[in-house]
Amino acid sequence: MSASSGFGLDHLPYGIFSVDNDSPRVGVRLGDRVIDLHAATGRPCFAEPSLNAFMALGPPAWAATRAEVTALAQSADPPSYAVGAVRLHLPFEVADYVDFYASLHHATNVGAIFRPGQEPLLPNWRHLPVGYHGRAGTVVPSGTSVVRPSGQLGDATFGPSRRLDLEAELGFVVGVGSALGSTVAHDDFARHVFGVVGLNDWSARDIQAWEYVPLGPFLGKSFATSISHWVTPLAALEAAWTDLPGQEPRPLDHLAPDRARGLDIDVEVLLDGEVVSRPPYSSMYWSPAQMLAHLTSNGASLRTGDLFASGTISGPEPEQRGSLLELSWGGTEPFAGGRTFLEDGDEVVLRYSAPGTSGGRITLGEVVGRIEPAGG
Amino acid sequence: MSASSGFGLDHLPYGIFSVDNDSPRVGVRLGDRVIDLHAATGRPCFAEPSLNAFMALGPPAWAATRAEVTALAQSADPPSYAVGAVRLHLPFEVADYVDFYASLHHATNVGAIFRPGQEPLLPNWRHLPVGYHGRAGTVVPSGTSVVRPSGQLGDATFGPSRRLDLEAELGFVVGVGSALGSTVAHDDFARHVFGVVGLNDWSARDIQAWEYVPLGPFLGKSFATSISHWVTPLAALEAAWTDLPGQEPRPLDHLAPDRARGLDIDVEVLLDGEVVSRPPYSSMYWSPAQMLAHLTSNGASLRTGDLFASGTISGPEPEQRGSLLELSWGGTEPFAGGRTFLEDGDEVVLRYSAPGTSGGRITLGEVVGRIEPAGG
Repeated sequence: MSASSGFGLDHLPYGIFSVDNDSPRVGVRLGDRVIDLHAATGRPCFAEPSLNAFMALGPPAWAATRAEVTALAQSADPPSYAVGAVRLHLPFEVADYVDFYASLHHATNVGAIFRPGQEPLLPNWRHLPVGYHGRAGTVVPSGTSVVRPSGQLGDATFGPSRRLDLEAELGFVVGVGSALGSTVAHDDFARHVFGVVGLNDWSARDIQAWEYVPLGPFLGKSFATSISHWVTPLAALEAAWTDLPGQEPRPLDHLAPDRARGLDIDVEVLLDGEVVSRPPYSSMYWSPAQMLAHLTSNGASLRTGDLFASGTISGPEPEQRGSLLELSWGGTEPFAGGRTFLEDGDEVVLRYSAPGTSGGRITLGEVVGRIEPAGG
Repeated sequence: MSASSGFGLDHLPYGIFSVDNDSPRVGVRLGDRVIDLHAATGRPCFAEPSLNAFMALGPPAWAATRAEVTALAQSADPPSYAVGAVRLHLPFEVADYVDFYASLHHATNVGAIFRPGQEPLLPNWRHLPVGYHGRAGTVVPSGTSVVRPSGQLGDATFGPSRRLDLEAELGFVVGVGSALGSTVAHDDFARHVFGVVGLNDWSARDIQAWEYVPLGPFLGKSFATSISHWVTPLAALEAAWTDLPGQEPRPLDHLAPDRARGLDIDVEVLLDGEVVSRPPYSSMYWSPAQMLAHLTSNGASLRTGDLFASGTISGPEPEQRGSLLELSWGGTEPFAGGRTFLEDGDEVVLRYSAPGTSGGRITLGEVVGRIEPAGG
């Protein structure tokens, strides 16, 4: 597969790039090139160092820009750079970051590992998309090294995590905010969400296991969350919508159980170059629009740059599990020749692909991270 | 007590104000007046609509400005407005919001109410300051009405919360950030924290009780968090530092158990004008500097505008409980003439006072909120 594969006219994802020491600005990827949108259009929102100003303009501007970029991409010589010659940055300024737990198979596996012999799913799980807030300030772009976190691993010890994990997820990026005290209806998803990113929700399982009662994960997650450089606009995913696997019991009306749709996105998890898992996003229980409707059902407002993630994507089969916790069954069943949790120096790559609108496949931005040893 | 009481030369808190329709900018409260810092000094950071640019300058600039403002306040006629003639705004742009759970009495009460017959404190509680991330985008300034949130109150019902509560807390505002992968030592607290605000962490107990396993509070908290208009700089609290009540077992070394200090701040909770509780901040188990050291112990970075709150302040006595959940013992013991949880139209006021550096007392910014009925 060439580097340009999956970045054709049916994709055109947005990112933030700079060349040498000039100012970061908005670019669109086409094949192996990055089109300089400010140079091409002169519009001020494309000179910004984040996508936020553009994303805040809303769906009509997104559609008009996509048409314009499509024409530009087909023109003789749009202002552009080789993707290998630019530096890529965090694509947007993250407002609030929420992480869901929307995979039935992941939640079931985690429940079975942590609470053996008990019913693995907690009573609320099939009634609402369980979620929590994460740390927006430690969302980093693909390629950023991750320092192994230290923390309390039990009551009397403090040290580097020994159970450092990845979580293969998909992230949804809010472009258009909403007012405090109002709700966002399920069917208004595309009026607010601009696009999707790949996301690795790095997790220190030993820190998390000790700290998480009763208020949830905190330092076990807050040290880093990696996202792709490229934001794929929803318009490029029109052919990827698919039926959900099924929801039983029927969710409440505001979660629109008759209209909820999933996404047919294939994910690959690579450890040091080897594919160790292929989680299918189509196996997710809760839909993206259901997550957003739930998030705002109490009147919480949205802001441009809000990021909400799916939670770990795990399919029904063992080789479709999206975390090392599951792949190694809590560390008890080494896989891929003896692996359990992440070692210093390990490189994790998450890859995503989806049906494109032209009959082929598009390649979403990958998420890369290498583990560095714990700090002194 | 006159309106000017507690806002003397030993206090000088910072806020953001506007007059008529002009631009919000930085002001300092002195008695019944708000000094216009940009008009007085011409410095650009005081023309900003948030304190963030000023707070990012760090302790030497904070100290120099405090000396300058003190001189200005004693001068003949500093540019100022009557506090009743200005509009007050959110004082800073909130980056990440973290809420701790640092009161032994609150955690014990909540454990006893939710898990009767079991050990009320969970095993981790005395070893680390338990905390979680909240929603930064729904932090609102004092005076903002709070719409009663709706949500799932159990598996098959959706409706307005029937157990809407307040939580009297203190918030700490970060001025100077830190690098990802580094930690902030306990003793570096004052190099990063600019000041404190009053904080009401509104909570819908029925939404929270159903949603919170296993990932913690989400929609039961995310609809609104109110903070005071005024940020009291740490310099005004120098006389308020006091010993902690005691920590057993001894916390780990990075939590500096020999040097940890608490704050002697008195809190009053008023419901429709009547004082229903007087929680003493001096009864808190975990210190502010321990919370910050814990928050960054995994290498998580800080940003200007990060807000971390203490969690509900409850003292050992029944009349010192900082939430209605505790004051009514889970709704089973009505107090103050039949009250349990918040009713539509209720007005909640949180008041704070502390020893000043001149021998008297200073009055921190109050936090006011009125409950509006659930939306249609």
